[in-house]
Amino acid sequence: MDYQIWLIVGIAGGAISIAVAVYLYFWVLRQDPGSEKAQQVAGWIRSGANTYLKRLYTALASLALVLGIIIALIFSFNFETIGTTGVQIQPGMGVVMAACFIIGALSSAVAGYMGMRVAVEANVRTATAAQKSLQQAFRLSFYAGAVLGLAMVGLAVIGMSLIFMLTKDSHAVLGFSFGASTLALLAKAGGGIYTKTADIAADLVGKVELGIPEDDPRNPAVVADNVGDNVGDVAGMGADIFDSYVASAVAVMILGASFASAMQYKYTVIPLILCTIGTFASLLGIEFVKVKEGGKPGAALNRGTIITCIIYVAALLILSFTKIIDAGIFWSATIGIVTGVIIGFTTDFFTNDQYKPVQETARVSTSGSAITIITGYSYGLISIVPSILGVVVATLLSYNVAVSNGLPGIYGIGVAAVGMLSISGMIVSADAYGPIVDNARGIAEMAGMGQDVIERADVLDSAGNTAKAITKGFSISAAALTVLALFAAYSEVVKANGIDLNISLREPMVIAGVFLGAMTPPLFSALLMLSVTHNAFDMIEEIRRQFHEKPGILAGTEDPDYDRCVGLAAHGALSSLLLPAFLAVGLPLVIGFLLGPNALGGFLGGAIFTGVIFALLMANAGGLWDNAKKFVETGKFGGPGSEAHKAAVVGDTVGDPFKDTAGPSLNTLITVMSLVASLFAPIIAVFHLF
Amino acid sequence: MDYQIWLIVGIAGGAISIAVAVYLYFWVLRQDPGSEKAQQVAGWIRSGANTYLKRLYTALASLALVLGIIIALIFSFNFETIGTTGVQIQPGMGVVMAACFIIGALSSAVAGYMGMRVAVEANVRTATAAQKSLQQAFRLSFYAGAVLGLAMVGLAVIGMSLIFMLTKDSHAVLGFSFGASTLALLAKAGGGIYTKTADIAADLVGKVELGIPEDDPRNPAVVADNVGDNVGDVAGMGADIFDSYVASAVAVMILGASFASAMQYKYTVIPLILCTIGTFASLLGIEFVKVKEGGKPGAALNRGTIITCIIYVAALLILSFTKIIDAGIFWSATIGIVTGVIIGFTTDFFTNDQYKPVQETARVSTSGSAITIITGYSYGLISIVPSILGVVVATLLSYNVAVSNGLPGIYGIGVAAVGMLSISGMIVSADAYGPIVDNARGIAEMAGMGQDVIERADVLDSAGNTAKAITKGFSISAAALTVLALFAAYSEVVKANGIDLNISLREPMVIAGVFLGAMTPPLFSALLMLSVTHNAFDMIEEIRRQFHEKPGILAGTEDPDYDRCVGLAAHGALSSLLLPAFLAVGLPLVIGFLLGPNALGGFLGGAIFTGVIFALLMANAGGLWDNAKKFVETGKFGGPGSEAHKAAVVGDTVGDPFKDTAGPSLNTLITVMSLVASLFAPIIAVFHLF
Repeated sequence: MDYQIWLIVGIAGGAISIAVAVYLYFWVLRQDPGSEKAQQVAGWIRSGANTYLKRLYTALASLALVLGIIIALIFSFNFETIGTTGVQIQPGMGVVMAACFIIGALSSAVAGYMGMRVAVEANVRTATAAQKSLQQAFRLSFYAGAVLGLAMVGLAVIGMSLIFMLTKDSHAVLGFSFGASTLALLAKAGGGIYTKTADIAADLVGKVELGIPEDDPRNPAVVADNVGDNVGDVAGMGADIFDSYVASAVAVMILGASFASAMQYKYTVIPLILCTIGTFASLLGIEFVKVKEGGKPGAALNRGTIITCIIYVAALLILSFTKIIDAGIFWSATIGIVTGVIIGFTTDFFTNDQYKPVQETARVSTSGSAITIITGYSYGLISIVPSILGVVVATLLSYNVAVSNGLPGIYGIGVAAVGMLSISGMIVSADAYGPIVDNARGIAEMAGMGQDVIERADVLDSAGNTAKAITKGFSISAAALTVLALFAAYSEVVKANGIDLNISLREPMVIAGVFLGAMTPPLFSALLMLSVTHNAFDMIEEIRRQFHEKPGILAGTEDPDYDRCVGLAAHGALSSLLLPAFLAVGLPLVIGFLLGPNALGGFLGGAIFTGVIFALLMANAGGLWDNAKKFVETGKFGGPGSEAHKAAVVGDTVGDPFKDTAGPSLNTLITVMSLVASLFAPIIAVFHLF
Repeated sequence: MDYQIWLIVGIAGGAISIAVAVYLYFWVLRQDPGSEKAQQVAGWIRSGANTYLKRLYTALASLALVLGIIIALIFSFNFETIGTTGVQIQPGMGVVMAACFIIGALSSAVAGYMGMRVAVEANVRTATAAQKSLQQAFRLSFYAGAVLGLAMVGLAVIGMSLIFMLTKDSHAVLGFSFGASTLALLAKAGGGIYTKTADIAADLVGKVELGIPEDDPRNPAVVADNVGDNVGDVAGMGADIFDSYVASAVAVMILGASFASAMQYKYTVIPLILCTIGTFASLLGIEFVKVKEGGKPGAALNRGTIITCIIYVAALLILSFTKIIDAGIFWSATIGIVTGVIIGFTTDFFTNDQYKPVQETARVSTSGSAITIITGYSYGLISIVPSILGVVVATLLSYNVAVSNGLPGIYGIGVAAVGMLSISGMIVSADAYGPIVDNARGIAEMAGMGQDVIERADVLDSAGNTAKAITKGFSISAAALTVLALFAAYSEVVKANGIDLNISLREPMVIAGVFLGAMTPPLFSALLMLSVTHNAFDMIEEIRRQFHEKPGILAGTEDPDYDRCVGLAAHGALSSLLLPAFLAVGLPLVIGFLLGPNALGGFLGGAIFTGVIFALLMANAGGLWDNAKKFVETGKFGGPGSEAHKAAVVGDTVGDPFKDTAGPSLNTLITVMSLVASLFAPIIAVFHLF
């Protein structure tokens, strides 16, 4: 059987997915946009979001162009002119690589942009629909989320299939993946800084200093805050999962190309087959996400995920019986998807207010914010354990299942990662739903839509929070397996260039590399978080200035200058990205060219281990503090306004940059590091100082 | 030349060190114990400390006995009776191992106990001396600290030399080291939980709820709090550095034994020579620690450290010229000590209020405690970087210096660790000084000794805090190099038992091991910190109960029941140690026997990397918050009572269990893990499930 046909099927599947996304987009637009007041509020958010996106994409476009030119130059350079022989780069590779890089960056940007566009239209329509029924509001917001999920997987599958079809070179697809991941990292980190700058500044001046409620239209930062939800959670998360999705597939393509002969494309194409099947499964699964009036939106989202998994595994089983994929691949992919779902639901234990961690953190808040922080942080540390156990079990099982079916074990680990991520269409849809309903709640509040709309929005919102927690556990675990596969891909690329990598922990260079790698994710997190507090300080000054210069704002007789706050947060976020971007793209190259490929191998290993651990810690502790605060707000331990509430708010504020800025960028960081190492491995293998 | 003579010199040097310690102890006792009121207060603390120590050592003695019996049984077991062949244990090894283990535990306990005994006598005498002059108070408290420092190195050198002289087996010295480290871990973790339970509970009820000052005698927890300073900082720190000191020497002894022939003891004895030289250097260096009235105690402490280093390096140079030690050893040890001092002083940058991190954290405290936490935590993450760079540079340099002088590179890394730690006599003396002056300040306050005594005590105290920060950076970095050497020792022991360790990061078992190892230090930290908050809650109840039942306490007409608080904190701390102790001693064995020696190698590697990172983060962030609070208390940003001060107090409280409970236990944790792995390696090499 010719596996080339699967490339066609992939492109077709991707096209269908995009078509459905476009259809849903226009369906959303046709829904009732609501009252004039609601539309005015939504207009502020939309225009703020556009301002930010314009700035972001202008900045990123220049950066992508610069990086593209650098890649083109390096890969076109004749290393023999400086006396270095043995660098194996085919002529013309420079332009191809640069083109793939830019296409990858572009696809990632388009997916994020589409998600944003629909989100800023869907928020007001969801709020309006919530005036009628929970059911309609839920359907609207979920379908809007699905626009992002489906557009993303569609673009990814088409991009990868097309590039491989044209170049027959998995290294070119690596360039595509590097482009997607670099853009994702900057979008995620920039969005994360932006959203928390606005959130913290709005809260500290609004809620704490002046005692006005959240989402009060008199607060000059309120639009920036609501824009932030879209920027960080929709555009950022879309770009983020896009990048893991592509990276896992590319890692397996490279591993497949390394052990199968060049003419036997089967093992190179397999990940694309898995992604295509996952796309179809997601398209079907989305149909099952429905809720009746009075039903539970959270249960509906989980049902959709589970059904998608079942469809996916069933389809793989058929492919396995018809010998299109090997039994080893079926089992590895199944292990991946099952582990992903289990880890996702386990994460829920630490962030759901029905269980001990959140309740205990809320309870100890009665003794002040310091105890809230210590307790939540400690549970965050413990929450690392189940996910790591899941990753370890998935690693060992998928490795051994592959080996016992005659495949290289590491290929099995990669397939498990692809298995986890191939239902991303569904996962992202459920996740993007969250910020849309969060925004709808904000609009309902700002437009004064009445208490029962806000209550319905709260029900939708809390389902969104659970979905978000599950997605985070899922995406971090998937990223862990993905980078393990990328790590193996790196050593294959080095090997293909004539060097057998020695990354034993007994080598001092490897130990040095691991230490340096291990310190990078904490340093990266620190830089992002300090940017948030630094920028929030500037913004607090601006808010105070507006209240001071225009007393009419607080009286409600004058409109605040929302745009200045949006612009300030955007400018701050983008100018904070330079050093983190260097850590991600530059530092691996410095280590590689300076200390050599073995040290770089150790560096990647170290970054993976602490990257995963800090990502889990920050995401889960942040989610836990958020929900402990909400738990107190339901009237527990004194309820709103009590000492416990004040302490819980401090926990929530600390958790904000943990869960929305630093935490979610870390898996993209380690992906980008692994990709840049593999991409430049042919040169580093030959050309290094020590 | 017969290197046996050095064992005699070592024993003699150790004996001199202990003799000086005993002399200083009685010198301290001869000083003026002060007024009756002061003696009464000191009596409370002394009796509280005795209560705790009695409980601690009773509990630890039973545990050591149980572990000793288990070791005796396992090492006497004939594995051929269960069909396992090839386990190479000499007959009679069981009893020898158990004896060495118990002697190690005992030595560590004695060192800690001596330190405590002198500390609870020196505190009141320091306060009394401070009535006369800063100079006398400084001399008294520093000499009291030196009792611990000198007793510790003396016991360690004698113990190691004697055991090696009698057994000629470096594995027996490993048993001694394991005993010392296990006791150190429990003393440190238990003391850390105890001291912060008391501290947090005393602060939350006293300062926050009732608004009475720190160290107010009406607070029922005030004695427990002051006992805690001794328990955690004197006994704990003494046992802690004792364990690193011994472990580094043992690791190098094992490495030396592995590459030199059995009859050529030179490379096995070298670490003992280095320790002996360091002991003499410390004895001389201590003489230079003096301060004039109006002088700076901090500068005096630093001068002592620098002079000790110079004497040490000069002595090594002489040994090198006389060919007693190789040039490679001279350079490795020098690299170690220089790096240790540089890292120590760099750490100071992050915790000293003269530099940006502390000042910036204090400044942002004006915007509330959440920003204090985020900022301090971020600087804590950044503070990892210089220490890691130092460890990396020391690792690479000492490895290459050793190799280029014809020694195994890993031996050079071990020698660098020993070089760092061999001046521990001086380092510990400067460190133990801190809690003594802290306590003296408490007594001056409680006994109403007047403002200028308190001010002098504050000057002494702030020098102690700087010394403490330097010691922590120093001890964590030394522990990093030590465990790297132990890690190498582990693979040598495995190799000696017929298995060539494969700890390449390309092996799934190794990856699984690294992930499991990497998650252990965070989990361990979380368990300790949750114990603190949990126990503090119980203690808060007890304090409130006393205030409620005896209204005379607050009026000052009735004495509170100090002993109940001491007992409660002690009971809570000791009963919280079971699970952490299992993680340290049991988990490596579970991994080894279940997943095999390669996975265990990965496990140790993972634990080392995150152990070092979390230890640095927690120690430095905690120190930073502490000093940011003190900086605000000097009148900056509104001074005491301001909003900034309240926020800074929250930061300080969060930092308490970071820097005094979880952080400092982590280096002992990874040492214990490495030791237990090496100790049981002969059995694990042969006997494992996968």
